[in-house]
Amino acid sequence: MIFRQLFEPQSSAFTYLIACDERREAALIDPVLETVDRDIQLLRDLGLKLSCTIETHIHADHVTGASALRDRTGCRCAVPQKSGAERADIAVREGEPIRIGRLDLHPLYTPGHTDDHHCYLVEDRDGGRIFTGDALLIDGCGRTDFQNGDAATLYRSVHGKIFSLPDDTLVYPGHDYQRRHVSSVGQERERNPRLGGDKTVDEFIAIMAGLNLPRPKKMDIAVPANRECGQVH
Amino acid sequence: MIFRQLFEPQSSAFTYLIACDERREAALIDPVLETVDRDIQLLRDLGLKLSCTIETHIHADHVTGASALRDRTGCRCAVPQKSGAERADIAVREGEPIRIGRLDLHPLYTPGHTDDHHCYLVEDRDGGRIFTGDALLIDGCGRTDFQNGDAATLYRSVHGKIFSLPDDTLVYPGHDYQRRHVSSVGQERERNPRLGGDKTVDEFIAIMAGLNLPRPKKMDIAVPANRECGQVH
Repeated sequence: MIFRQLFEPQSSAFTYLIACDERREAALIDPVLETVDRDIQLLRDLGLKLSCTIETHIHADHVTGASALRDRTGCRCAVPQKSGAERADIAVREGEPIRIGRLDLHPLYTPGHTDDHHCYLVEDRDGGRIFTGDALLIDGCGRTDFQNGDAATLYRSVHGKIFSLPDDTLVYPGHDYQRRHVSSVGQERERNPRLGGDKTVDEFIAIMAGLNLPRPKKMDIAVPANRECGQVH
Repeated sequence: MIFRQLFEPQSSAFTYLIACDERREAALIDPVLETVDRDIQLLRDLGLKLSCTIETHIHADHVTGASALRDRTGCRCAVPQKSGAERADIAVREGEPIRIGRLDLHPLYTPGHTDDHHCYLVEDRDGGRIFTGDALLIDGCGRTDFQNGDAATLYRSVHGKIFSLPDDTLVYPGHDYQRRHVSSVGQERERNPRLGGDKTVDEFIAIMAGLNLPRPKKMDIAVPANRECGQVH
């Protein structure tokens, strides 16, 4: 497997490139509109063909680069079926792996930040990697106060689908605001201050209810655009 | 590759198991005397033969499990040549990879915490892992005030041998005191508060000179024992 972690500083969003080194086919998880040129250049540099873009969910803080990448490379756009995204080519559902060359990316349905959210697990013999989007961040998690978010649901998603994986599974989040890059399931299960240690679902609900976060600035542009794979009118 | 990160809470020390899944041969990096039973059980559970133990350096805070593991499994003990360890079977030197089945573990000479310190790099197609011992910790580094430690030397080791690796190389440290498990070269280069960002060698020397750390409690037992691969008299 070829792997790259990429960062877009305005939204503090990570994009992940994973590719099959035999077939030279690649996927981009959560590409960002502003960094489409960078992503295309990287694909060229690595000699890879973009097979598909893959969204963890309908983002509220940035516009996906999916549509622009499809226009320029002919790739397909994979979006969770539950998001009802128009113009998607692949409707993502848990239990239906996305094939990239010889790699299988397993969608795990992890609602709570949004009701369409999926994480993606790629397993290999040395432990695997999970791309956790906004369900689980390093020492944190995505907010649960819009887009049908729900704290109790997120708690069950993280404990049931992520913390049940082997300790050494690497956690690659959708964002980080403190220049951290990577964690592991063991680390988050042990020390995530919201969801880890012995935190109960009621404690988590109270933490999330007390955050009082401002409305994301780009939400009114990003959500409708992302429902159309990032097509900006 | 088979990979496991293991933890010994008294010394907050990580031991790493890496193994070739084809040949079923394993190595343990920095095993600890107190957890030898656990390590042998894990090898049994995974169906692996212990080929060798490997030290990053002569530890001052715990006694290595190397000698006990050799007695019980017949493995060989690899120790940096510069440590002058008696009873070692393999004298580790940069440029001479340690072979574990079909895997190659590359020693990188990284003095500064001690004058015998080596990190170990295992490369794979998705980026590689470096076991950094006490040269580089997550958001920190080992002390430089004994065993011929030297701050300027450590700065050069980390910048020259670790920060020069690709961003996505995973950093697995020898210790963590805050239940963190993993970092990456990109993360440490960007935000390590002692060695990363734009920190100069003079700033690093000043930071290390100001630490005023107590003498390790186990030093007078651990250092002589570790010079004999952990043989306790």
